[in-house]
Amino acid sequence: MNHQDPNIVIIGMGTVGKVLASAFAKKRNARTYNLHLIGRTEQSTRDIAERIRDLFAMPALRHVCDARQTDSLIERLLEINPAIVINVATPDTHVSVMRACLEVGAHYLDTAVFELPGDFNVAAPWYNHELALREQFRQKGLTAILSIGFDPGVVNVFCAKVRNDYLDCIDSIDILCANAGVHNQFFATNFNAAVNLKELCENTGYWQQGAWHSSPPFSRSMAFNFPAIGMQKLYSVGHDEVHSLSVNIPEARIEFWMRVGDQFRSTFEVLKNVGMLSLAPIEVGAERISPLDFLARVLPSPQTFANEYRGTVCVGALISGTKMGKPETVFIHSVCNHEDCYQDLETQVTAYTTALPVMAATLLVLDGEWDVGTMVHPEELPPDPFLNRIRELGLNWHVTYPSSRPEPAFNT
Amino acid sequence: MNHQDPNIVIIGMGTVGKVLASAFAKKRNARTYNLHLIGRTEQSTRDIAERIRDLFAMPALRHVCDARQTDSLIERLLEINPAIVINVATPDTHVSVMRACLEVGAHYLDTAVFELPGDFNVAAPWYNHELALREQFRQKGLTAILSIGFDPGVVNVFCAKVRNDYLDCIDSIDILCANAGVHNQFFATNFNAAVNLKELCENTGYWQQGAWHSSPPFSRSMAFNFPAIGMQKLYSVGHDEVHSLSVNIPEARIEFWMRVGDQFRSTFEVLKNVGMLSLAPIEVGAERISPLDFLARVLPSPQTFANEYRGTVCVGALISGTKMGKPETVFIHSVCNHEDCYQDLETQVTAYTTALPVMAATLLVLDGEWDVGTMVHPEELPPDPFLNRIRELGLNWHVTYPSSRPEPAFNT
Repeated sequence: MNHQDPNIVIIGMGTVGKVLASAFAKKRNARTYNLHLIGRTEQSTRDIAERIRDLFAMPALRHVCDARQTDSLIERLLEINPAIVINVATPDTHVSVMRACLEVGAHYLDTAVFELPGDFNVAAPWYNHELALREQFRQKGLTAILSIGFDPGVVNVFCAKVRNDYLDCIDSIDILCANAGVHNQFFATNFNAAVNLKELCENTGYWQQGAWHSSPPFSRSMAFNFPAIGMQKLYSVGHDEVHSLSVNIPEARIEFWMRVGDQFRSTFEVLKNVGMLSLAPIEVGAERISPLDFLARVLPSPQTFANEYRGTVCVGALISGTKMGKPETVFIHSVCNHEDCYQDLETQVTAYTTALPVMAATLLVLDGEWDVGTMVHPEELPPDPFLNRIRELGLNWHVTYPSSRPEPAFNT
Repeated sequence: MNHQDPNIVIIGMGTVGKVLASAFAKKRNARTYNLHLIGRTEQSTRDIAERIRDLFAMPALRHVCDARQTDSLIERLLEINPAIVINVATPDTHVSVMRACLEVGAHYLDTAVFELPGDFNVAAPWYNHELALREQFRQKGLTAILSIGFDPGVVNVFCAKVRNDYLDCIDSIDILCANAGVHNQFFATNFNAAVNLKELCENTGYWQQGAWHSSPPFSRSMAFNFPAIGMQKLYSVGHDEVHSLSVNIPEARIEFWMRVGDQFRSTFEVLKNVGMLSLAPIEVGAERISPLDFLARVLPSPQTFANEYRGTVCVGALISGTKMGKPETVFIHSVCNHEDCYQDLETQVTAYTTALPVMAATLLVLDGEWDVGTMVHPEELPPDPFLNRIRELGLNWHVTYPSSRPEPAFNT
């Protein structure tokens, strides 16, 4: 620990927290900082601290605290004196952690919208809980960057990059997320199973002609011929980035699409029909737990099969508009494969591509380039410093010009 | 209550307990008796007592007791002074209830083999826990009839009937259980889901050439052209009656086969692959519960959709052997439909055909015809009084001569 160096706090010792701590430890040549880890349990926090000490000779201070308990979190943070707090705990912690940051005068980053476990089909637009605190961040000159993982996160920056450098007008933005990897699990999600399966049960929401539209789950699909992974079938899914892009680029049609494999989908439908995706709690002795949360504990944790994950993921923004008066479509995207991510940080693509953008954004805030002194979404910030930084950390990105735009199909 | 009349105790206030109490209340013209209901919860016991009081003007005394707590059960039974105790609680209660019967001098009936929740692929032969108490029942002159529901139960008696009246030698016994009914549930079992799904996960065990054989689940199948419901595909499943018939008719090949519909099977396979049929407990706060037991709470209880169940069930024993030196095959069976069972006792076939044989056996023990003063399986008792009695109570049975025996297929 060096008292001259800024204190970086990571809250949330799950898969992303582990990868993020590893990245800060392994890729620290650019800058010096002190690392503080806050987890809900002693065990998870110690495991990660010992890992980065053993693998990368990086010390980290450990703290155990439930981030939803604002007062006790404030106590911890006052001891730490953080420059910036990175929240990669469950999405029900965000408001509590933001309030604590306001109290102790720290910058704030997270990777998804605030959400309570029982929330379902939340009406658009999202981010109201966060934006209610924007004025306080502005008054205190503190920076809060909301949802700066990959999608949401990097894809929002992709949109800003295209708006700045590739198109004069934007007519449509389709965020495309296609994990074409294979593993030996019968059924597994690539991140928090309770969050992922719930979002697939919800209606999808998309932005068109200046208004929100809603459609049942799996009712809107399309096929797209991706770089590296070829033709993939995607389904429209309600997703965080649509809710900020619709504010910042309101003239465009905006929709999020996710690849769902056939076996995943058929298994998902069985689990849904059987009642295992229900949010209504079941009594187990003196405890209560929803079938969805119980199922999430039965399914393999994404981290447990990272070492056997093979294949490639392509995520990007397919953006149409005009350039110099002529129609133009660009696909700005990253291509990652699971083996490379495991080689670098012993994880799979989803956690890797969530953690590295967070690290890039953290460094940009500390360096001043993204220290804007208020609450923003990623597309409101200058994209180039960030796109350069993620490339340095190990995330490539490319722009291609697809020969044709795919047409969505409905009710398939 | 009349102190001259025998006290009948029903332990277990689940679906079968409810139907059994209803049957004793509705069909009581043949005999007088006092009815005592013992349940694990006040609520379930009161619901059933109030039901038979309101529907059939039958009083019943209620007692709350966990039947696995032998001492407290003995206390209750000493207050009641039962002539006979019918145990239709979960199969982990049997030994405790039998010990209590020995202590208080009551006859005993149940409907399945003793089984602990964690038991899996128990080695053949079963019934060791029960048979360890046989000598004590004999010494006290008390009757214990093991597994006298339908299958096991009536089908065992069917075998005795065929041995007595239809064939001189028996070469093979195939117990065939085919529920061809339809309901509006996506996935549901016809009795205790945890028990039913577990037995489908286990290896099947069958008796051939004087020895036990084992085969993986769903590895042995056959098709049989049933009366009333036509051709049905059946799978070999390990089942209670094979384990007593192999002792009492050891010269025969003996196997149990159950119809499993295509949608049921594909859903079952998904749930198994996902891990939801595992018996390994998961922690939920301070409690622990296996995925299988949790799933059983999520699935619809068989009783909840009895009113929408339609269609027909055929269960019987397909028995081949010789008569007067010539080969002969008989199929002795019952045909029931869900609507009739609901009309009579507001239940579906499985609970109905489990409860009525228990009632018939109870009356035969009280009347002396089946009061044999020791522990027996149903096939060891004279079949005719029982087969007459179940017909009076509402269960038909028939003997047909199939034109050909089906050939089992393996590894399908």
